Amino acid sequence: MCKFPNLCINHSLKCWHFQVTNGTVTSRNEIDGGMIVKLVFLGTGAGMPSKGRNVTSIALQLLEERGTTWLFDCGEATQHQILHTNIRPRRIEKIFITHLHGDHIFGLPGLLSSRTFLGGEDLLTIYGPKGIKEYVETSFRISGTYLKYPIQFKEIIEGIIFEDDTFLVNAIELEHGVQSFGYQIIEKDLPGELNVSALKEQGVQPGPIYKLLKEGRTVTLEDGRVLSGNDFISTSKKGRKVAIAGDTRMTGKSQLLAKGMDVVVHESTFADEETKHAFDYFHSTSTQVATVAKEEHIHTLFLTHISARYQGELSNTLLNEARSIFENTFIANDFDEFDISRV
Amino acid sequence: MCKFPNLCINHSLKCWHFQVTNGTVTSRNEIDGGMIVKLVFLGTGAGMPSKGRNVTSIALQLLEERGTTWLFDCGEATQHQILHTNIRPRRIEKIFITHLHGDHIFGLPGLLSSRTFLGGEDLLTIYGPKGIKEYVETSFRISGTYLKYPIQFKEIIEGIIFEDDTFLVNAIELEHGVQSFGYQIIEKDLPGELNVSALKEQGVQPGPIYKLLKEGRTVTLEDGRVLSGNDFISTSKKGRKVAIAGDTRMTGKSQLLAKGMDVVVHESTFADEETKHAFDYFHSTSTQVATVAKEEHIHTLFLTHISARYQGELSNTLLNEARSIFENTFIANDFDEFDISRV
Repeated sequence: MCKFPNLCINHSLKCWHFQVTNGTVTSRNEIDGGMIVKLVFLGTGAGMPSKGRNVTSIALQLLEERGTTWLFDCGEATQHQILHTNIRPRRIEKIFITHLHGDHIFGLPGLLSSRTFLGGEDLLTIYGPKGIKEYVETSFRISGTYLKYPIQFKEIIEGIIFEDDTFLVNAIELEHGVQSFGYQIIEKDLPGELNVSALKEQGVQPGPIYKLLKEGRTVTLEDGRVLSGNDFISTSKKGRKVAIAGDTRMTGKSQLLAKGMDVVVHESTFADEETKHAFDYFHSTSTQVATVAKEEHIHTLFLTHISARYQGELSNTLLNEARSIFENTFIANDFDEFDISRV
Repeated sequence: MCKFPNLCINHSLKCWHFQVTNGTVTSRNEIDGGMIVKLVFLGTGAGMPSKGRNVTSIALQLLEERGTTWLFDCGEATQHQILHTNIRPRRIEKIFITHLHGDHIFGLPGLLSSRTFLGGEDLLTIYGPKGIKEYVETSFRISGTYLKYPIQFKEIIEGIIFEDDTFLVNAIELEHGVQSFGYQIIEKDLPGELNVSALKEQGVQPGPIYKLLKEGRTVTLEDGRVLSGNDFISTSKKGRKVAIAGDTRMTGKSQLLAKGMDVVVHESTFADEETKHAFDYFHSTSTQVATVAKEEHIHTLFLTHISARYQGELSNTLLNEARSIFENTFIANDFDEFDISRV
């Protein structure tokens, strides 16, 4: 239990937002000099739940960036999995559905209902293929479910589906028999900060001149000195780039999805020897996905949506095949968490 | 794991169908002189899943009577709960939905889909209020789900909704804001058996006369002896009678539902001090339900659909209140199993 309930955004299970040093509480944000994006795998199995893996859902916690969590897919019992994490349903701001197969959406009506019981009041936006709105609204109408918060549905086509000052989300259509998207979550670069103390040392006091310098302009002071903004701005921080693929057979679109990304989460339902089977059923193999990761020079690859035939140690088959091509590969397991740091 | 996979109907987790004595395999049916009906509580919580209780589902295993299981309600993650029992989805023959609230139906599309993957081929019949068909069919259409077995929907009104040689199911409409049913599952009495060895001792050989005697008729033999069938028929065995209530505020209908039953499973969302709250939200209290059990002289009462406010030891409040009125009361917990013997 978190020791700082008044400060901490999320203090249910593990507190990683604050630490205490010599009696002073410090935000991890300040400590790390950057903000934390966390991937939480809530379900990593294909098709049907098993004792080892639930059906698909992945959370991207943006607590310090936005105070919210984004969810990618919502298979049945996603809300049950969430009970064992520090994710709060009321803080879920956006849900991105990759495709409409049951193992990716059947947890949606229940989670959305519970969000109301758990104090959710803020707008929730659901992005996904055409049909997602009818599915949720029919479930609600027939079950007599009324929410105390607004829902917005965005039935999408390929392209940029969301953009604000800090994030951009790009949807790329993959190939799965039914419409299936991969999402690129692109954090915008954080501009460099003005070195205020250096300016003060030079006798330059805060005022409109700071704005000009922060824009990188050259300014002439009253005493004739010429200052260049670039000399007082630290280097900008690269935004993080994460791609999360829906179910797909391997095509050039997976390559496009991985392009320029730091982290890719991709289905790897089957091992290499099932390449034909994977193609026939619109799925990918470990080898195919690792090859894309290598060619696109990404940083980290997570394989998920693992077929039930690779239980326990057998999942090492997929891992070893992938690592022989792209070393920084991991098989995602339910409840795995991964901090994505700024480069 | 069962030692008799070729004999045993269900040998996944616990085998209770056969035992071995001196090298001879004997059916428990023969040993017990009766057949086993088993109640399995898959979800016993109200409204939302918690770590301790899932949302509602109750299985009635009729493995020796019909080789099948009947399910009552199917809240989200019922199929996940089933993974931890010996219930096989492909053996689920009928699903009775008490009412359409989400915590009683949101597990249906997933379980029905998985039943196909798990080899289910036989007809499955779903009984419930009007709307259940549209809910399931919309979920399937949008998710592109195709089953390899037939489903029959029976949108019911109050009255007898199923009857065959061995069972009858009667639906009684309760009071819950939305249409909500309680189901009486009535096993028909097992007629007495003809005492063949006693007849043979008297020199009466098998033939059409056996049929007449079994019907209780009086027969005159060729040698002039007069035999009454009633002297050669064992007493009939009473069928078991179980009622499973949907969510309801207490009304005379709960009394009607309990009338003549051996076992009643009834929601008890709240404790006695919440009587007004229970009424306002169309739910029942422990005291109300126990009073009905006492007045109707049932044998065993199970309280379920327990509000999350009574976690852990707090559920004893409900239990103690109920037992002070009707002693043979139990609070159902997830995964509780209960054999219902013939009286």
